[in-house]
Amino acid sequence: MTPFTLELTHTDGAARRGRITTSRGPIDTPAFMPVGTAGTVKAMQFRDVKQTGAQVVLGNTYHLMLRPTAERVDRFGGLHRFMGWDGPILTDSGGFQVMSLTDIRKLTEEGVEFASHIDGSRHMLTPERSIEVQCLLHSDIQMQLDECPPFPIEEAASRESMEMSVRWAKRSKAAFERMAGGHQALFGIVQGSVFPDQRAASVRALTDIGFHGYSVGGLAVGEGREAMLRVLDATCPLLPEDKPHYLMGVGKPLDILGAVERGIDMFDCVLPTRAGRHGQAWTWDGPINLKNARFADDEAPLDATSDCPASRDYSKAYLHHLFRAGEYLAATLLTWHNLAFYQALMRAMRDAIEAGAFAEFAAAFRARHQERAGGQGAG
Amino acid sequence: MTPFTLELTHTDGAARRGRITTSRGPIDTPAFMPVGTAGTVKAMQFRDVKQTGAQVVLGNTYHLMLRPTAERVDRFGGLHRFMGWDGPILTDSGGFQVMSLTDIRKLTEEGVEFASHIDGSRHMLTPERSIEVQCLLHSDIQMQLDECPPFPIEEAASRESMEMSVRWAKRSKAAFERMAGGHQALFGIVQGSVFPDQRAASVRALTDIGFHGYSVGGLAVGEGREAMLRVLDATCPLLPEDKPHYLMGVGKPLDILGAVERGIDMFDCVLPTRAGRHGQAWTWDGPINLKNARFADDEAPLDATSDCPASRDYSKAYLHHLFRAGEYLAATLLTWHNLAFYQALMRAMRDAIEAGAFAEFAAAFRARHQERAGGQGAG
Repeated sequence: MTPFTLELTHTDGAARRGRITTSRGPIDTPAFMPVGTAGTVKAMQFRDVKQTGAQVVLGNTYHLMLRPTAERVDRFGGLHRFMGWDGPILTDSGGFQVMSLTDIRKLTEEGVEFASHIDGSRHMLTPERSIEVQCLLHSDIQMQLDECPPFPIEEAASRESMEMSVRWAKRSKAAFERMAGGHQALFGIVQGSVFPDQRAASVRALTDIGFHGYSVGGLAVGEGREAMLRVLDATCPLLPEDKPHYLMGVGKPLDILGAVERGIDMFDCVLPTRAGRHGQAWTWDGPINLKNARFADDEAPLDATSDCPASRDYSKAYLHHLFRAGEYLAATLLTWHNLAFYQALMRAMRDAIEAGAFAEFAAAFRARHQERAGGQGAG
Repeated sequence: MTPFTLELTHTDGAARRGRITTSRGPIDTPAFMPVGTAGTVKAMQFRDVKQTGAQVVLGNTYHLMLRPTAERVDRFGGLHRFMGWDGPILTDSGGFQVMSLTDIRKLTEEGVEFASHIDGSRHMLTPERSIEVQCLLHSDIQMQLDECPPFPIEEAASRESMEMSVRWAKRSKAAFERMAGGHQALFGIVQGSVFPDQRAASVRALTDIGFHGYSVGGLAVGEGREAMLRVLDATCPLLPEDKPHYLMGVGKPLDILGAVERGIDMFDCVLPTRAGRHGQAWTWDGPINLKNARFADDEAPLDATSDCPASRDYSKAYLHHLFRAGEYLAATLLTWHNLAFYQALMRAMRDAIEAGAFAEFAAAFRARHQERAGGQGAG
């Protein structure tokens, strides 16, 4: 099967336009990956996810190892076949969810022991077990297990944590080499909180080990956009140019814009899906909340120029009605719209990089996109 | 616009195969109409409702007059345009929901006064207001307001109620003639509980008034299948042969089979949609509950021979997983499957009538279809 590679076709400043090749199809970068936590992108059919232009989706190792279990997914021939998505799948390591979703857990050098949030059953997640689970899921792009430190964190504690993540990176790589196929990819995760020298040390250690791609972790945890972008300023120039750069769990459109500007290639975030289920539509002009009474008589669709049926074929008044009535279709249509908007934004950024006009695009987008319009933040 | 007509093409015993013409397209009968209560068939996109072969959907006057309001739907050019369904729409009168969903109500000869279950606001539903609302919704097939008596009911009370429904039928017809367009249709509703002479009197009075079709109301309210079919035995032969016969709110597949056998042409029921949201799949072999642990490793789809993606392209194990995880897609896929099964059943009955083989079809279906398989009734 086709090995995992990145071909960079254009650069514009630090912004990069490329194409990742996987055995399950290409990923045009910069790319946004919809989150399919538990074997489904919530409220969506995969046919409609594909319609938006998404080429890769994310699965959550933590959720899937507990239910339906990775072993069951493997018996079904992998997550692609189980859930009906034939494109590439990226999985996280499970670490972030263990830290954020479980009450009882014990972290040691060996790994993290935790109790399932579903039934309280005990599990041990180690770097090796995480890779094993991701292989059982037949994941195309896997993540090393890392520790996700809180924010803010003391400099010394951050260094200790980052150094353990590096040791886990080494163990992950060894496990991956034993278990994975030649078409699969493993990413290392750069840690070090907001400390530039720690980020640099993390990158050096990870590149010594050698990965198919490099994630920037530990961001979008409350540090704010400015601090996040400063970390990227310090980190991105150090990342290997010929490998994908993935900013995990980010973010709002303006976060993504700033990160692409600094050389990030891949993104994932629950914002477009979660916000969609709660009535928030992201648009070129910013977010609006469809539950607001001012949309009750609004005959206009969310985006008449879109090729997404959810954006183009339904009035805001109908969407407003569906949310007021508590209908399933409300979540479906708004999630679909938000995913289509995110993909359209990524396409526009790729086109701008190709045209050597990214700075102009970014300025125009920033001038138009009002994050506070419509109120109610999300994310 | 095309006037509303029924052409009967085949009969087989009392069973009838026909085609209703409406200004928004044909309806092949016997027909099953999915219920789209509040401007959406719950958990479905209309694109997928259409894929199942459904040619007409039902809207609930009670729900829509309260939210988003009939006046608002009219300003949007009608319910078809508001919700994105270009086929014919049948609306009920709102009476049944007023009787079953509101706590505070007062029934008089004039109509029924009630308090909204949404916000407690006071409304008056009269035969004239019901027709007005249905016209504001741009409904293609409208129902007279009737009283839906409880079951069981004393003979004398039933007769009084039936006679008031006849007087309301006359007022409904007069209102319809003032307000509706020549392409729209109005059905009278036969009442009389389980009393054959009252059913006959109701039919005589309604045919004297004259309607585009005749509904049989007041059934599927707890009287049981046998009693229901006895009422149809007494009623169907009296209904005008050249008009559609509609059995309201029915039912399970075996109910529909027995009713088609007796000359019913149209059906609606929340069973396939409601059951789908709760994990129950209806199949040729009977109902099964996908939440049951025995499906956790079942690789087979619900129906490999179906042309419905929901029935054909997903394993029972995946559907089981989605229900266990509480995912939206669970409701969507199982509703879709159930609607597709109901449409396939109607197609099979139409084909059997055309072939003059309805009795053989009915016997084979009854031998195969085990209502109790999988436990848990619904409806």
